[in-house]
Amino acid sequence: MFPLLVATVLAAEDPLPSWKDTAPKKAIIAFVHKVTDEGSPDFVPQPERIATFDNDGTLWAEQPVYFQAFFIFDRVKALAADHPEWKEKEPFASVLKGDMKGVAAAGEKGAMELLAATHTGMTTEEFSKSVTDWIGTAKHPKTGRPYTEMVYQPMLELTAYLRAKGFKTFIVSGGGIEFMRPWTEKVYGIPPEQVVGSSGRLRFEMRGDKPALFELPEVNLIDDKEGKPVGIQTHIGRRPIAAFGNSDGDLQMLQWTMAGDGPRFALLVHHTDAEREWAYDRTSHIGKLDKALDEATAKGWTVVDMKADWSAIFPPAK
Amino acid sequence: MFPLLVATVLAAEDPLPSWKDTAPKKAIIAFVHKVTDEGSPDFVPQPERIATFDNDGTLWAEQPVYFQAFFIFDRVKALAADHPEWKEKEPFASVLKGDMKGVAAAGEKGAMELLAATHTGMTTEEFSKSVTDWIGTAKHPKTGRPYTEMVYQPMLELTAYLRAKGFKTFIVSGGGIEFMRPWTEKVYGIPPEQVVGSSGRLRFEMRGDKPALFELPEVNLIDDKEGKPVGIQTHIGRRPIAAFGNSDGDLQMLQWTMAGDGPRFALLVHHTDAEREWAYDRTSHIGKLDKALDEATAKGWTVVDMKADWSAIFPPAK
Ligand SMILES: [Ca+2]
Ligand SMILES: [Ca+2]
Repeated sequence: MFPLLVATVLAAEDPLPSWKDTAPKKAIIAFVHKVTDEGSPDFVPQPERIATFDNDGTLWAEQPVYFQAFFIFDRVKALAADHPEWKEKEPFASVLKGDMKGVAAAGEKGAMELLAATHTGMTTEEFSKSVTDWIGTAKHPKTGRPYTEMVYQPMLELTAYLRAKGFKTFIVSGGGIEFMRPWTEKVYGIPPEQVVGSSGRLRFEMRGDKPALFELPEVNLIDDKEGKPVGIQTHIGRRPIAAFGNSDGDLQMLQWTMAGDGPRFALLVHHTDAEREWAYDRTSHIGKLDKALDEATAKGWTVVDMKADWSAIFPPAK
Repeated sequence: MFPLLVATVLAAEDPLPSWKDTAPKKAIIAFVHKVTDEGSPDFVPQPERIATFDNDGTLWAEQPVYFQAFFIFDRVKALAADHPEWKEKEPFASVLKGDMKGVAAAGEKGAMELLAATHTGMTTEEFSKSVTDWIGTAKHPKTGRPYTEMVYQPMLELTAYLRAKGFKTFIVSGGGIEFMRPWTEKVYGIPPEQVVGSSGRLRFEMRGDKPALFELPEVNLIDDKEGKPVGIQTHIGRRPIAAFGNSDGDLQMLQWTMAGDGPRFALLVHHTDAEREWAYDRTSHIGKLDKALDEATAKGWTVVDMKADWSAIFPPAK
């Protein structure tokens, strides 16, 4: 029993065991104590302890492409038998051939066609099931691990620590809201109602005697860049006091968070570990971190150097 | 100390003291035990205990007009000094003269102009402040009470009871989301992030060095009728297991709630008490209850007869 006891005490002493004892960890813990310690001059009442997290590149990995893109490619392959015309039609033909250059060449228009073919024209429940089925079986091409194990152990600890300290944790991601909701509660402890993301319009209709919600091929919200504060206000209705991101797509969320009154915290995850994960920033086609890195430096926001500040990247394999 | 003790025990014994011991109260308590008692065959895990409440006519009164309309009229009067042209321009001229028939004659187009003039062109924080200032001082024209005391005591008890039993309570209202958020936490115990309502589009921009969110005169969501299940999916992302409304505007929310698997609960508040409140249903211009009443009867949903089932309507005056 003694080792278990020690482990428990140590765990209680250190809420962030996968964070090295460097500046980011110290800054996080100092901020949390400042806003949660009774009697602190900067005490924040529990209902106002709102923390928002970007997903791709902040809570889980995003290389070599956003994982939602792998879902889309796999769905196109799964649906291809019902769409013989896709063999001749771009961008579907390139997806079916595994020709990523061809997919990229189809540009934004091609991406929207792939999104429409795999995300719309079905009920929200049918879509949700397609995500649940996929995420339960799909594996990352480089690591061979399930995508739900390509999450960052230090960030799992951080979200749990904040919740233990009375924070409400939200995801605010450019990814699809309905793509995330089926698994965020199990993987991150963040329930569907605390997930904000990009979305299409929905239509309610009666299918005979049964009501159904259909996903339409019309954009409702692009929850990225300027869209992040919009998504935050629409869904949460109050300004976060802490925000966590990894790219220029998070800059406006961090600006919006930091511009409120009272104590504030902003953090960027900088991908610097080519060995244990990936290293990329200013010129990356995914998760470009350029302007936000300059602003973080200028304003003294916390920047995590993954290689230097995290003792573990992913959770142990199950 | 003895009377206090008795009151405490009685309160614990009866979570719904302003509900008479009639069928609706029995149905509510039976449903709550069914889904929350450990070992119940219909037990629902806590995260799935989602309950949604309409606001106007369900949580607070809505006669002689929606209270948000009084806010709009008062705002037009407050802003009139900066808009001398309104004296000659409908529908503003009618509002300033207190001519409700003139306002009504301006129809939907007039209503949208009033909404735009009082709800848009400012930051979300400026709008929120205008609501907070108004609701802290405005009085209902018939009762002379603050609008925040025109809430239904039995429904305050019901929302608190559900929360004590592990439910998460949401407002899903046709009213403006940003009109409700400034006061729902204080009045109902429902925080801003659990308020769903009608909304305009928002735009993020930098005002010099300071980020701001502006309310635009473009509809984002009309959270009424078919819009209610859409609002529920967008904001909550899972289907409620209990829903509460008072009009045909709630029918689709109740249908959507009842069409899920497992135990379900739907309730309509029927305004039958002309003496203590108002009596209206099938032909009312506000809160019309016609098709939903027929469907509730046909399907055995719970219908509250306010006169017969509630021992108190409003909380005691402060
Ligand atoms: Ca990201
Ligand atoms: Ca209503």
